[in-house]
Amino acid sequence: MTQTLRARSMIGRATEYFRKLQPEICTALEKADGSARFVPTLWEHPVSGGGDSRVIQHGALFEKGGVNFSAVESPLNELLAGRLGVKPQRVHAAGISLILHPESPMIPTVHFNLRYLELEDGDGWFGGGIDLTPYYLFEDDVVHFHSTLKAACDRFDPHRYPDFKRRCDSYFQVKHRNEARGVGGIFFDYLRDDPDRTFDFVESVGASFLPSYLPLVERRKSAPWGAHEKEWQLHRRGRYVEFNLVYDRGTLFGLETGGRPESILLSLPPSASWDPAFRVEPGSREAKLVDVLRTPKDWVTL
Amino acid sequence: MTQTLRARSMIGRATEYFRKLQPEICTALEKADGSARFVPTLWEHPVSGGGDSRVIQHGALFEKGGVNFSAVESPLNELLAGRLGVKPQRVHAAGISLILHPESPMIPTVHFNLRYLELEDGDGWFGGGIDLTPYYLFEDDVVHFHSTLKAACDRFDPHRYPDFKRRCDSYFQVKHRNEARGVGGIFFDYLRDDPDRTFDFVESVGASFLPSYLPLVERRKSAPWGAHEKEWQLHRRGRYVEFNLVYDRGTLFGLETGGRPESILLSLPPSASWDPAFRVEPGSREAKLVDVLRTPKDWVTL
Repeated sequence: MTQTLRARSMIGRATEYFRKLQPEICTALEKADGSARFVPTLWEHPVSGGGDSRVIQHGALFEKGGVNFSAVESPLNELLAGRLGVKPQRVHAAGISLILHPESPMIPTVHFNLRYLELEDGDGWFGGGIDLTPYYLFEDDVVHFHSTLKAACDRFDPHRYPDFKRRCDSYFQVKHRNEARGVGGIFFDYLRDDPDRTFDFVESVGASFLPSYLPLVERRKSAPWGAHEKEWQLHRRGRYVEFNLVYDRGTLFGLETGGRPESILLSLPPSASWDPAFRVEPGSREAKLVDVLRTPKDWVTL
Repeated sequence: MTQTLRARSMIGRATEYFRKLQPEICTALEKADGSARFVPTLWEHPVSGGGDSRVIQHGALFEKGGVNFSAVESPLNELLAGRLGVKPQRVHAAGISLILHPESPMIPTVHFNLRYLELEDGDGWFGGGIDLTPYYLFEDDVVHFHSTLKAACDRFDPHRYPDFKRRCDSYFQVKHRNEARGVGGIFFDYLRDDPDRTFDFVESVGASFLPSYLPLVERRKSAPWGAHEKEWQLHRRGRYVEFNLVYDRGTLFGLETGGRPESILLSLPPSASWDPAFRVEPGSREAKLVDVLRTPKDWVTL
């Protein structure tokens, strides 16, 4: 009986949607890459549930990428319940998260995540977002990316894109460097009004990931690059590592609650470097990117 | 008058000692490297004081290393005062910190730090430690390293080495990987009894750094290595990054309080990699290291 009710609940719908989205996205990315395939690893959560971590490596385009699906049920300890402002109880969590680190510094890194959390007492909410981290700035690409996300939001509410865009800019800050991680996108959490409408919105965001990103891959995959551009990419990947390990709530929450480290840390780049003597030439293409990371722009009319 | 008193106080003695130790250590390391030189950067703290960050790169032995000296005076905000269990007030802090990332995977990474904090209300304490992170395990080297640190401690109290060795093992844990960062050393904090005796102990630790580490460099600098060993080193450096950015109190405290990020993050390796498909061959030299990281050993008789 509980099983049947559970299957009809939002956690059931969300889980099925995320489970279905994972292979759709992986297939499209394999087609784009044209060479490497995703390798799945099924894993079980120590308490209940588990996930499917799919990893692509050494592709023609994607040096490393991961698409994680997970659906777990576990007790919320006092610390975490306190942070969420609820009493200790069991929590169901389902989600899909993706990160792609292309080999070419001309193709941006992208991150996409959707998740649903449901407490035993019935309260539940969605969170997620999509954001872009280029190494070189092609303004047309950033405009296309943001326009696609805006269209996915505007179908629901014209205030949604400006709100979620600003949240994204404010969340993905490498505070100690006084820089954003990338050129933003959308970021949202605690979406809980009108379950059916919220679910439609989440599906709209899920459907916008491939059309927001794949055209950028197509446009830039043949752009030439050399040792100078690779060095810059490795330097910027160092900043990506700094953000993910020092600030990212999802990463820290996952590690703290005993999540599978190999899946959580799939977000880290294949390699990164830290050179204290690194200098950005004023007026260079690298400096142009840094300017935008220091002062987030509105890429489309809000 | 305040200036004169301040100069005679422990903060004055500690500052002068750390300031003098920095060039002594840099000179010895340059001699060992035989090729690269330390490049100093003087910087000022936004409130009062400053430091001298000395960086060595692309040496014959040291791919990247930093020896930082700093002496700053700043307000302790409510958050930090609360964590230390004192009322908000000004704090003087002086310290020296060192990290060396050798090019050869046969030579271990080493970290050394001494610091003194003094509150306006007069309370002050020393902290610090020395710890070793090898990529390949040469038991003789680890025994030499620990024996040297033990001798520096035993002159003061036979309980000191076992106590500080255990604190080191328990502090340098990459918890989510269920591994220690390295093979330990000594770690201590809040040393405040008998100021003169404590200062002597800190000098004893400071004097033990070079003799604990340089013999290992001499023994291993000609050991052959290739692509396989380099790949393993980059993989282990990834763990080093994970520890420093997720758990290291000094790093997080520094970034949070607006310390100079370039100095704080000098501890990061020149490069690191994360390969989700990385496998350690059972019975290999790499597996032998991992065994020791999973189960810390007593390297000398406690």
